[in-house]
Amino acid sequence: MFNTVLELLKKRNYKAIREIFMDMNEADVAALLQQFYDDHEVEKYELPLLFRLLNKDVAADVFAYMDSDTQMMLINAFTDKELQEIVDDLYLDDTVDIIEEMPANVVARIVKSADAETRKQINQILKYPKDSAGSIMTTEYVYLHRSYTAKEALDWIRHVGMVKETVNTLYVTENRKLVGVLSLLDIVTADDNDKIEDIMEDNVITVDTLEDKEYVASMFSKYDFLSLPVVDRENRMVGIVTFDDAMDVIEEETTEDFSKMAAVAPSDDSYFKTSVFTHAKNRIAWLLILMLSATLTGAIVNKYQSAFAAVPVLVSFLSMLSGTGGNCGSQTSTLVIRGMALGEIRMKDFFKVMWKEFRVALLCSVILAIVNAIRIILVYHGDTSVDCYKLAFTVSMAIMATVVLSKLIACMLPMAAKKLHLDPAIMAAPLITTIVDTCSTLIFFTLATIVFDIK
Amino acid sequence: MFNTVLELLKKRNYKAIREIFMDMNEADVAALLQQFYDDHEVEKYELPLLFRLLNKDVAADVFAYMDSDTQMMLINAFTDKELQEIVDDLYLDDTVDIIEEMPANVVARIVKSADAETRKQINQILKYPKDSAGSIMTTEYVYLHRSYTAKEALDWIRHVGMVKETVNTLYVTENRKLVGVLSLLDIVTADDNDKIEDIMEDNVITVDTLEDKEYVASMFSKYDFLSLPVVDRENRMVGIVTFDDAMDVIEEETTEDFSKMAAVAPSDDSYFKTSVFTHAKNRIAWLLILMLSATLTGAIVNKYQSAFAAVPVLVSFLSMLSGTGGNCGSQTSTLVIRGMALGEIRMKDFFKVMWKEFRVALLCSVILAIVNAIRIILVYHGDTSVDCYKLAFTVSMAIMATVVLSKLIACMLPMAAKKLHLDPAIMAAPLITTIVDTCSTLIFFTLATIVFDIK
Repeated sequence: MFNTVLELLKKRNYKAIREIFMDMNEADVAALLQQFYDDHEVEKYELPLLFRLLNKDVAADVFAYMDSDTQMMLINAFTDKELQEIVDDLYLDDTVDIIEEMPANVVARIVKSADAETRKQINQILKYPKDSAGSIMTTEYVYLHRSYTAKEALDWIRHVGMVKETVNTLYVTENRKLVGVLSLLDIVTADDNDKIEDIMEDNVITVDTLEDKEYVASMFSKYDFLSLPVVDRENRMVGIVTFDDAMDVIEEETTEDFSKMAAVAPSDDSYFKTSVFTHAKNRIAWLLILMLSATLTGAIVNKYQSAFAAVPVLVSFLSMLSGTGGNCGSQTSTLVIRGMALGEIRMKDFFKVMWKEFRVALLCSVILAIVNAIRIILVYHGDTSVDCYKLAFTVSMAIMATVVLSKLIACMLPMAAKKLHLDPAIMAAPLITTIVDTCSTLIFFTLATIVFDIK
Repeated sequence: MFNTVLELLKKRNYKAIREIFMDMNEADVAALLQQFYDDHEVEKYELPLLFRLLNKDVAADVFAYMDSDTQMMLINAFTDKELQEIVDDLYLDDTVDIIEEMPANVVARIVKSADAETRKQINQILKYPKDSAGSIMTTEYVYLHRSYTAKEALDWIRHVGMVKETVNTLYVTENRKLVGVLSLLDIVTADDNDKIEDIMEDNVITVDTLEDKEYVASMFSKYDFLSLPVVDRENRMVGIVTFDDAMDVIEEETTEDFSKMAAVAPSDDSYFKTSVFTHAKNRIAWLLILMLSATLTGAIVNKYQSAFAAVPVLVSFLSMLSGTGGNCGSQTSTLVIRGMALGEIRMKDFFKVMWKEFRVALLCSVILAIVNAIRIILVYHGDTSVDCYKLAFTVSMAIMATVVLSKLIACMLPMAAKKLHLDPAIMAAPLITTIVDTCSTLIFFTLATIVFDIK
């Protein structure tokens, strides 16, 4: 598709491109234009040219699907009139999303293009804190009066529906307070004279404007909502969050968790849009902290120089031991962090998780210890410089202790972080590996000095 | 809420419980009943008793929200008539979800309870492969004929709409082939005599019955669909996937990715529903593989016994070196795996990613090397047993090589896995740490023998 359009563009066959665009979904057109921008396959003036080939009634939709760099490039190319047409057609929450990514001068142009009412609403939404329900909501919903009949409601929806983001769910308000909710189907299937208040559901689940957007998104998975009303402290309805924004939040938060769990400071941009310098900046802090913490393990090793002077082969098990401890720890911490994110593991389950992990650790550690002992006895059987049974015993005991310890630490730390209102995701593999390393080295050398009777 | 209901249950005040249930959302009632089951707070017969207090028209919804253990317990307590009522009211895709989790005898009872038409459809959906679009679709959608007028369409929706899972999106078929799509709002706002074929959108995005469900779910985030039509090879419409099922798939797949990236075999059940034995089974395979691979590093260490006999302090840097290599690797592999899952990184970006990671690695490694050199010189400044400048040089060079190498390996392996049609997630931190460990140990000792002129 990309190459076809590129060919047509070179031949200046705009009519054919226009027809191709007409047959495509808006999200696909956006992805295609995006590709032109990212791959620098076109001259600077050609992207606006391509965009102008779009039908007026889909242009705003396509625009909303693009990433902020491409949007900015287009805005700078738009005339004031073009920008105004786009802003008029955009859903309010999309406009706010775009504004949040733009530099001040572009924001000023966008806000200037909006009509007075939209401008007021944009400013209202921008006032909510960054991660709140208010910041991701839209004020474009359809509200009904409880005394409407079904027929009156349908007429009202016909009148205002086309410019609202969603009409599948309708809200009933009284003095701006939310009193009920119903679906478009409820109205369509009702008798003409049925009163809205008789067919609406009056137990409405709402969220506060200041509620954390991650929590709001999780309510969508729980209740399978299409949209969720947002109310202020006086229970006055101020907007709705739609499911597509909730899906975006879930995706964003998951990416953030992945980053944090790999000791990377989360980035707002995608992998390629983040510069090399920012990538390095996002990673270096944790690398430094973890590198310096690891010197503690080094200090322990130094303390036991006499041990590996006496039995040099001991040193060769350090890496296996710390690797196994790290892996066991990351298994547990990942499962616990994900379990908490999904709401499967709650704070009151602390001891239940500990007890479960303790038994899992015991099972795993026994198997690992046995396999390890067999391997050591097989390899060092004929070696006169070391007693293979003592060696097998020492290493296997150290493995057992390390596995149990690492799994217990790895379930305690994320839950403790949550208790302290920190993000559990930072207590993931890298940090736990470093802590477990220190412990396992200490255990191993202590055991070795006892078993091999090293002074 | 839980304690209130428990109190009322003890007092046998069923009327009050019934009223509480009536004011609650179905998902919340399900969570409450679930809690009664999980916490064993009630006698075995009391859960069905509580369930029977529910209004008939919400009972099936509540049932669909519960987990499979609780569902099975209830099914076993139901009379045939009760089960039939529930199955009648359930959406077809929910019934199939339930069936997939049940043992054969329970499945037989459920299928027997369904009417002939539903039974046929259940069997049809069950025939699709486990991870296909067909297996998560429902056959309960509303289809229209293209020659209908808007008024005829509305009458038809009034007639059949209440028992279909979604009517927000309507499908136009001709000889069972899908020819168009439109929303309920399109029909509501059309003139009574407008023809469906004139208001429908005829470029319909569809998925094949055998399409991977993860890909299907990703289309929901891309296009913000409420539902997506599923067609067979002859483009005949066979069902729809609804957005709530897509959200479940995304959540499931993300959890699977988290598990794999922590070297845990994914589990179908939640953390607590998975037994200690299964947890251990899911974790032990990778632990064994990684433990045994780590012996390679041990072998390298053994080969260089002369090196750390000459300069014992060298050993104390092994853990820091392998830790730093592991952390750098997991940062990169996590970002690349997540980037591929989100479609931000594609196969053709292979060299672009390598080049970016190379530069990031260079930046990070220089900083780490400098900080490390300063620390070593400060600590070993007055130590006569070792030349602190040689030591600082050796360790810092080894860090730089390890960081660059680990970041390059960590972006190559996940992408190579994808190329080989393996899941990139298995090429995550644990495996990479083990590989990098071996390399960094080799680099370090090779450098050390040269710098310290060890024979």
